[in-house]
Amino acid sequence: MQEKIQSLRARIDTLNLKILELVSERASVAAEIGALQSSMGSSQYDPVREQTMLDALVAANRGPFDAATVKSLFKQIFQASMQQSQKQEKRAYLTSRATHGTDTVVTVRGVPIGSKHSPVLVAGPCAIESEEQVEAVAAQVASRGVKLFRGGAYKPRTDPYSFQGLGEEGLRIGREACDRHDLAFVSEIMTPSDLPLFEEYVDLLQVGARNMQNFHLLRTVGRSGKPVLLKRGLSATIEEWLMAAEYLLNEGNPNVILCERGIRTFEQYTRNTLDVSAVALAKLESHLPVLVDVTHSGGRRDLLVALTKAGLAVGADGIMVEVHPNPAIALSDTKQQIDFPAFDRYLDDTGYHAKLSEKRVELYGF
Amino acid sequence: MQEKIQSLRARIDTLNLKILELVSERASVAAEIGALQSSMGSSQYDPVREQTMLDALVAANRGPFDAATVKSLFKQIFQASMQQSQKQEKRAYLTSRATHGTDTVVTVRGVPIGSKHSPVLVAGPCAIESEEQVEAVAAQVASRGVKLFRGGAYKPRTDPYSFQGLGEEGLRIGREACDRHDLAFVSEIMTPSDLPLFEEYVDLLQVGARNMQNFHLLRTVGRSGKPVLLKRGLSATIEEWLMAAEYLLNEGNPNVILCERGIRTFEQYTRNTLDVSAVALAKLESHLPVLVDVTHSGGRRDLLVALTKAGLAVGADGIMVEVHPNPAIALSDTKQQIDFPAFDRYLDDTGYHAKLSEKRVELYGF
Amino acid sequence: MQEKIQSLRARIDTLNLKILELVSERASVAAEIGALQSSMGSSQYDPVREQTMLDALVAANRGPFDAATVKSLFKQIFQASMQQSQKQEKRAYLTSRATHGTDTVVTVRGVPIGSKHSPVLVAGPCAIESEEQVEAVAAQVASRGVKLFRGGAYKPRTDPYSFQGLGEEGLRIGREACDRHDLAFVSEIMTPSDLPLFEEYVDLLQVGARNMQNFHLLRTVGRSGKPVLLKRGLSATIEEWLMAAEYLLNEGNPNVILCERGIRTFEQYTRNTLDVSAVALAKLESHLPVLVDVTHSGGRRDLLVALTKAGLAVGADGIMVEVHPNPAIALSDTKQQIDFPAFDRYLDDTGYHAKLSEKRVELYGF
Amino acid sequence: MQEKIQSLRARIDTLNLKILELVSERASVAAEIGALQSSMGSSQYDPVREQTMLDALVAANRGPFDAATVKSLFKQIFQASMQQSQKQEKRAYLTSRATHGTDTVVTVRGVPIGSKHSPVLVAGPCAIESEEQVEAVAAQVASRGVKLFRGGAYKPRTDPYSFQGLGEEGLRIGREACDRHDLAFVSEIMTPSDLPLFEEYVDLLQVGARNMQNFHLLRTVGRSGKPVLLKRGLSATIEEWLMAAEYLLNEGNPNVILCERGIRTFEQYTRNTLDVSAVALAKLESHLPVLVDVTHSGGRRDLLVALTKAGLAVGADGIMVEVHPNPAIALSDTKQQIDFPAFDRYLDDTGYHAKLSEKRVELYGF
Repeated sequence: MQEKIQSLRARIDTLNLKILELVSERASVAAEIGALQSSMGSSQYDPVREQTMLDALVAANRGPFDAATVKSLFKQIFQASMQQSQKQEKRAYLTSRATHGTDTVVTVRGVPIGSKHSPVLVAGPCAIESEEQVEAVAAQVASRGVKLFRGGAYKPRTDPYSFQGLGEEGLRIGREACDRHDLAFVSEIMTPSDLPLFEEYVDLLQVGARNMQNFHLLRTVGRSGKPVLLKRGLSATIEEWLMAAEYLLNEGNPNVILCERGIRTFEQYTRNTLDVSAVALAKLESHLPVLVDVTHSGGRRDLLVALTKAGLAVGADGIMVEVHPNPAIALSDTKQQIDFPAFDRYLDDTGYHAKLSEKRVELYGF
Repeated sequence: MQEKIQSLRARIDTLNLKILELVSERASVAAEIGALQSSMGSSQYDPVREQTMLDALVAANRGPFDAATVKSLFKQIFQASMQQSQKQEKRAYLTSRATHGTDTVVTVRGVPIGSKHSPVLVAGPCAIESEEQVEAVAAQVASRGVKLFRGGAYKPRTDPYSFQGLGEEGLRIGREACDRHDLAFVSEIMTPSDLPLFEEYVDLLQVGARNMQNFHLLRTVGRSGKPVLLKRGLSATIEEWLMAAEYLLNEGNPNVILCERGIRTFEQYTRNTLDVSAVALAKLESHLPVLVDVTHSGGRRDLLVALTKAGLAVGADGIMVEVHPNPAIALSDTKQQIDFPAFDRYLDDTGYHAKLSEKRVELYGF
Repeated sequence: MQEKIQSLRARIDTLNLKILELVSERASVAAEIGALQSSMGSSQYDPVREQTMLDALVAANRGPFDAATVKSLFKQIFQASMQQSQKQEKRAYLTSRATHGTDTVVTVRGVPIGSKHSPVLVAGPCAIESEEQVEAVAAQVASRGVKLFRGGAYKPRTDPYSFQGLGEEGLRIGREACDRHDLAFVSEIMTPSDLPLFEEYVDLLQVGARNMQNFHLLRTVGRSGKPVLLKRGLSATIEEWLMAAEYLLNEGNPNVILCERGIRTFEQYTRNTLDVSAVALAKLESHLPVLVDVTHSGGRRDLLVALTKAGLAVGADGIMVEVHPNPAIALSDTKQQIDFPAFDRYLDDTGYHAKLSEKRVELYGF
Repeated sequence: MQEKIQSLRARIDTLNLKILELVSERASVAAEIGALQSSMGSSQYDPVREQTMLDALVAANRGPFDAATVKSLFKQIFQASMQQSQKQEKRAYLTSRATHGTDTVVTVRGVPIGSKHSPVLVAGPCAIESEEQVEAVAAQVASRGVKLFRGGAYKPRTDPYSFQGLGEEGLRIGREACDRHDLAFVSEIMTPSDLPLFEEYVDLLQVGARNMQNFHLLRTVGRSGKPVLLKRGLSATIEEWLMAAEYLLNEGNPNVILCERGIRTFEQYTRNTLDVSAVALAKLESHLPVLVDVTHSGGRRDLLVALTKAGLAVGADGIMVEVHPNPAIALSDTKQQIDFPAFDRYLDDTGYHAKLSEKRVELYGF
């Protein structure tokens, strides 16, 4: 019986090679068609044509496959052909590492972020509340070597009656403090029409988690000359996050930094669940720098050091953390911002300064 | 020993009543302060004052509670006082059933939605693709008694290279077809600056799941005279969804319809998980009408009937379903739109017409 | 240029048919091999053989596909062949509707559950606490026409210091009360060694959500002559749930009832999220009866009526609900059990008795 | 008006202190009652008594609070009292760091795990498939300095027709190979009745994710003299995980090691989502050692190094990783096991050996 099996297997081997020959030929023809269609400006994907081919195949099918299997198999073959053709032709995703071999370095007010550069630290209050508060934080973090200051002037708040930010006045306060202390200013933009204002005041435009798929906002900041920090949505898949970045790059803005900030899960001890795999995969699949927002990821002060270490360990290009002169009376995020003594302990416990000068090693290689 | 316990319990009973007396007195005083502050235009919540009180209490504490318990207990007492005071004062949430006793009825181009009115059916293609396609669907659904037509002219797409909708041309096509067949036109608005366009063409402004917390968009459509259909975000809690509606009502627009469309979970057999509890709770906690989008909830044609029945069973005020002349060649949602014969079967199997005339019964009462 | 495309498309059409011919031939040969292997008692899936074939194909590949695409395409072809062969050969899943065309009806102490039979109601306390409590509930629910009584004697509790149930004493109490009131007794079995005890006392063996993948327990109750109620795990996919049922059927027990009880999601207003799609899909993909546990699904009394209606609307074959003489002092689930007056209102509001005699209609048909 | 507010605030301050006095007195009385009840062997929590007190308070309430607020406030006060009393009395959770100040070190066949000891590496195949396979892996990992060998003889498989493990034969094979190479043997126990077998063959009893709330199994291995590795359930909260460990400690087994292995979320790029916060919090809240299973967390070979670094960065006491001579033909987990050359690269890239001798630093301190 083993002999019988051997001879049947030899037939399989021959059939495999013949099938390979035919599907390869098919792919070459499909690529020719694709090139012609591109030159005519039309899309390669033609669902009517595909339906016609599938109908013909099902009609010709004499078994042993059932109709559904035939359709599914040929869908695979069509897709492989089309992807091959598209790869040869032109567009691979602009965010893809396959397209853009080297790590992108985004420079924000002279500070390089990404690739072999030391991981940056972005620090500042959740919201800009007053001239005094901002001056205090900016002076403090600058004195510790921080180069990027965060502070929200327009706040996305679940409750319409919560503090919504100081608006343009907040941007002005932030800008002036940053200028006094030679800090880059990072602040969240919430709607397309605010772009001129942000371009005047801000160095790095933050697109928040709730706006990750606000596609008009993405297109607008994608047309800006300013670099963009794109936070991952609360329940966005890694694929959706990279696609949101693709909107930015596709509009011509190459200066995009990704930022993981925890995802929404069933766990209740933490506000969100930091997804370190997403950081590693974003760096594996794209060439963009990736930061980790350790404040929102956990929503707990006692996790900031651990999450910072985890983020840097998987290759993050920097960390974002909220610092406030007196978190207990902050107008937002009172439970997760840290005060100045805690910030100093944080810098010690994370070994952040040491990290800054550390030579980066490659994480991936399997 | 039981006697000893009885006498200790009597002491507890006395203490309970004394504590009640004091916290009630405290609440009355707090309400007085609140009223004064309101009249001066300042917020009742004063974190610095709260911190000072907590510090004083911790300093005075002689046990047996530890400091954390004292703080936590008094935080509860402060909050209860403040909520009581706010309740007495003015603002309870505008969306809350407690505030607005009767069901809201939203009238869209003459069709009443909500309360005891028969559940409506909103039908139409995912995207407006051409004059012919829209005419075909509008004629078909109108001939079956449908009064509201859906069709996207601006499509929120994960991939920037996917079909993004026909834009204003799409709105015009939709409007004209709706006029020909006496249908209300429902279409998704994606960004604030498009409002004038939508006010010209559309009867019911849809805010999509990805924009549920696009707060500028909410404020903008909240200032429009047009009714709004607010979809629940992919991973929005019921509370966040109601708060998003609060943004709309707070801007002056009372004509808000909620729409559950499935939430993101771990399950893979369905695209999203229809949360029928959310429909029931939205109706229990708010006075707004609630629809169910059965197409996106499951992402499967073979679930449309079951999900429609479930939605209506929990009290939904209507259903939204996608219909396309030839789903296999649609530019989006090819796997979940239904064709005309399937739409007829759907109307039969759901008993939709029967439902339309059925007297609605109250679901809640425990 | 269109002509050029037409002629290339004609070549594609020819290639498609040739490929179909070859993959069909390949499938037939593979089926022959599969039959031989089955007769020799060995598994059809041979990963070493598969690897060898893939290596040969990659070696023979001259483009345009890259090696990864060739491997992936042929993996699909291998799988389609193997699945086809397995389908022809023998085993399709025992739970599958495809295998077992008609609905299974499980009869518990004379009560038929499933198919066109009226939806049953399983009612009783969360836990058996005392002779008096059980007698009170059993008498009450029996007087209202209920035929199945639930009550836990062994309770799966998160906290080891919580009430763990009365054990065998509880089973005895439950059995006697059920005998007095002519009720079938449903109780949860937590470990294989308890089976003899349960076979003595209980009519329907419940496998709880936390034990849905306790495979030894599944195999043990699968060898019992008693019917089994299999709850869906807190985060089990529908596929995993059906596979757990497959363990039971594969051991020879055909009397399996599935029970959806809500899944774990991010939502906080409810304890779990009732997944009505899972009920519909379980009935679509399997032939087994499906119940809905409305108490655990929502974890809220004010949702019981709505969730019952939703469950029955999607085709559930029955509902499970917790009833307790005085929920406020229950030893478990104090917030979600209902008392006797509430149970009467529940029966009225759900129209449960009316439902019982209603002719069932088919839900599925697209 | 500010003066008026100041004088009202002074009244509030006085009331605060009086309330504190009364609730403290109440807590002391409650503690006395609690002590008496404990000495009589009855539970402190008496829901009927609590209901009576709440009824009395609601009856006595003259406003401004509504009944619901009064109940809720006093529920808080009752709970604080009871928790205080319980704290004074006796049982705090055995797993709690508050109870057991120092880190627990679990010694497995002479290898200390936890506290300041170097993080261990547990390596081996998913399943024990044959004498040759096990000998190859054991020899290889032992030669690299690994001291703990993993390999499943009883496999929890979703599909009843998948390879279920070699059973006792597998345990024997594993034991003999471990003896030859001086390795500790870690293997998963799936059901209580297998304990004698496991006690004969195995050094560290693994309780798998699917059995984390198989309470009979927990109680049984909790009575064993062998140390236990407790994996976190697929959707278990951190609290539930610690409670499962509490079952083990409560039965008398102090040698418990926790193991995070990723949780189930919506993300599709990874099989599970590694929750590094859970590792940090498990160490913060309990005194038990914590490992990270990097193979199941991501389900991808290309993430093993990153997840190992993240796990160690947040303070894990060791890592578990799957190694197989030829993963492509493994009987399970073919996509995530690594072969020998990849294992060597893994040791290099993680700097695992260097880590072994590194002095551990405290992570927590805010």
